[in-house]
Amino acid sequence: MSELRKDPVTGRWVIISTERRKRPTDFKLESVTAGSSDACPFCEGHEEMTPKELLAYRGNGSAPDGPGWTLRVIPNQFPVLRVEGTLERQAEGIFDKMNGIGAHEVIVESPRHADTLATLDEEGVERVLWACRERVLDLKRDHRFRSMIIFKNHGAAAGASLEHSHTQLIALPIVPREVRDEVDGSRAHYEAKERCVFCDILRQESADGRRLIAENADMAAIAPYAPRFPFETWILPRRHQALFEEAPRHEHGALARLLGDVLRRMNKALGMPPYNLLIHNAPVAEPAGEYYHWHVEIIPKLTKVAGFEWATGFYLNPTAPEEAAQVLREVRL
Amino acid sequence: MSELRKDPVTGRWVIISTERRKRPTDFKLESVTAGSSDACPFCEGHEEMTPKELLAYRGNGSAPDGPGWTLRVIPNQFPVLRVEGTLERQAEGIFDKMNGIGAHEVIVESPRHADTLATLDEEGVERVLWACRERVLDLKRDHRFRSMIIFKNHGAAAGASLEHSHTQLIALPIVPREVRDEVDGSRAHYEAKERCVFCDILRQESADGRRLIAENADMAAIAPYAPRFPFETWILPRRHQALFEEAPRHEHGALARLLGDVLRRMNKALGMPPYNLLIHNAPVAEPAGEYYHWHVEIIPKLTKVAGFEWATGFYLNPTAPEEAAQVLREVRL
Repeated sequence: MSELRKDPVTGRWVIISTERRKRPTDFKLESVTAGSSDACPFCEGHEEMTPKELLAYRGNGSAPDGPGWTLRVIPNQFPVLRVEGTLERQAEGIFDKMNGIGAHEVIVESPRHADTLATLDEEGVERVLWACRERVLDLKRDHRFRSMIIFKNHGAAAGASLEHSHTQLIALPIVPREVRDEVDGSRAHYEAKERCVFCDILRQESADGRRLIAENADMAAIAPYAPRFPFETWILPRRHQALFEEAPRHEHGALARLLGDVLRRMNKALGMPPYNLLIHNAPVAEPAGEYYHWHVEIIPKLTKVAGFEWATGFYLNPTAPEEAAQVLREVRL
Repeated sequence: MSELRKDPVTGRWVIISTERRKRPTDFKLESVTAGSSDACPFCEGHEEMTPKELLAYRGNGSAPDGPGWTLRVIPNQFPVLRVEGTLERQAEGIFDKMNGIGAHEVIVESPRHADTLATLDEEGVERVLWACRERVLDLKRDHRFRSMIIFKNHGAAAGASLEHSHTQLIALPIVPREVRDEVDGSRAHYEAKERCVFCDILRQESADGRRLIAENADMAAIAPYAPRFPFETWILPRRHQALFEEAPRHEHGALARLLGDVLRRMNKALGMPPYNLLIHNAPVAEPAGEYYHWHVEIIPKLTKVAGFEWATGFYLNPTAPEEAAQVLREVRL
């Protein structure tokens, strides 16, 4: 029989549908493979095709906006929000609006077209995380911004418009609703129990083991108890910490190691799936230190979200997390 | 410049992106047209292919589960939840779960394969609404259910697995999060202002006119101020009422008339788009009478939802509602 499960952080209910049960081979997905790089603005040597870089990791002596880099951060050429201007908050009768102030940046993860977070070595993945951290620290000095969203769309089916592996950072003058719900939910848990809900989850999942995918000394990868999507995976730092950007270097290394490992497991078990990755972080300037716990969420794009699901916020998941975790855990890399 | 707008009911912020502005002809969509009906379980004469009917509107003398009907309601053959059994609520350590008790029904809107809500006459659309009402009233007597979701996926891209036009009804033992947010948001508005937020919206949109699409004496169709999706459309009864199932017959007629009109406008302006339709209703057994206001939401499926959007709950909409309303308003039927 199907089961209704509640996510302990957001209060979101999902149905784990055994009637519609799906195993890895039941999903029809578009495998993600790299094509041609001739016209790719993110490839080394094509730097003139992008806006000027905001940050780059470069070999000695190489000049900005030319070749010789291992990672580049550039403004998005078609930003959804712009940095320039004054933030204006206005009413329109009973409605509320602001002008579109914000930042929209792209972290180009490698100079090579075919690299992915699954094929880069640990140092390469750590560079991506470190660049995100540097950009967050820089953008935090701009007091117009309330939250920063670090996300990655891998593959066209996951929303990537360019094939060359990249991560995006959007700084917003508001706190979006999913972030709000997560922060409010974890605060409510803390107020009721004097404990961080994510620490509670880590403790229970480590002891239980059925939803554990992989781990190292600093990080654990789990299938969450109430996943919205098949093979949804969270990577949490074992040590309590609200802010991603305050994690020490060795935790970035541990995350890079485990993230590469998890993505390689997904590639092998699910056939190079498209996916979305999101760094969940506490909003800027909210004192979330005690109750929030930063982490990474990865969603392979295996199913379509139908009207029912986004309209109700009530997800139907055909793969139990215990089964997904077992499949990923047993992959031989 | 882009604009951030806040939905006054849920508090959800969206970006109306003028940088990525899209007009009707810019969307690449899969037009929805009916194909073959030979193997369709919903066609007249194929009644043996479905579970036994729960309700049907039939001509005099026609027998249940045979031909001679204008509308049939049947249990879903592959239900995500089942009616049989006792609702069991359980903890699993820090987690919460229930067994999958619920109802999942299908309203087959017409005996003919090619009919849609846009081609049915007013009486035909009203029959669909009336059948939904009858099923809600019947299921409400089952006190295990907390909310009922009435929705329609039109076209494969919108999640429809069968082509023959149908609506679905799911009765749930919980209140899903989107419903919760809408109800809580409208209650907060009522507590602060002693007014229904939807009545406020109707008043402002009627006076303003820029987001008005079509209307009649009892119903108004508007492009909401902060739409998640291009051409998102809400139809609201002018008279305040929390519950869809308590609306009088003439309001069902008025909704049927306006719904058909709006769907024909969308078909003409957008090229027979796939869409999702949802009846937003107050949850069962919550005293939402003063602050909630039932309505219909229609979302043509013109864009893909990328990771960023569902992960943050923060939608990027490339078509301003003022433009969408104007396009739909000016369609000549």
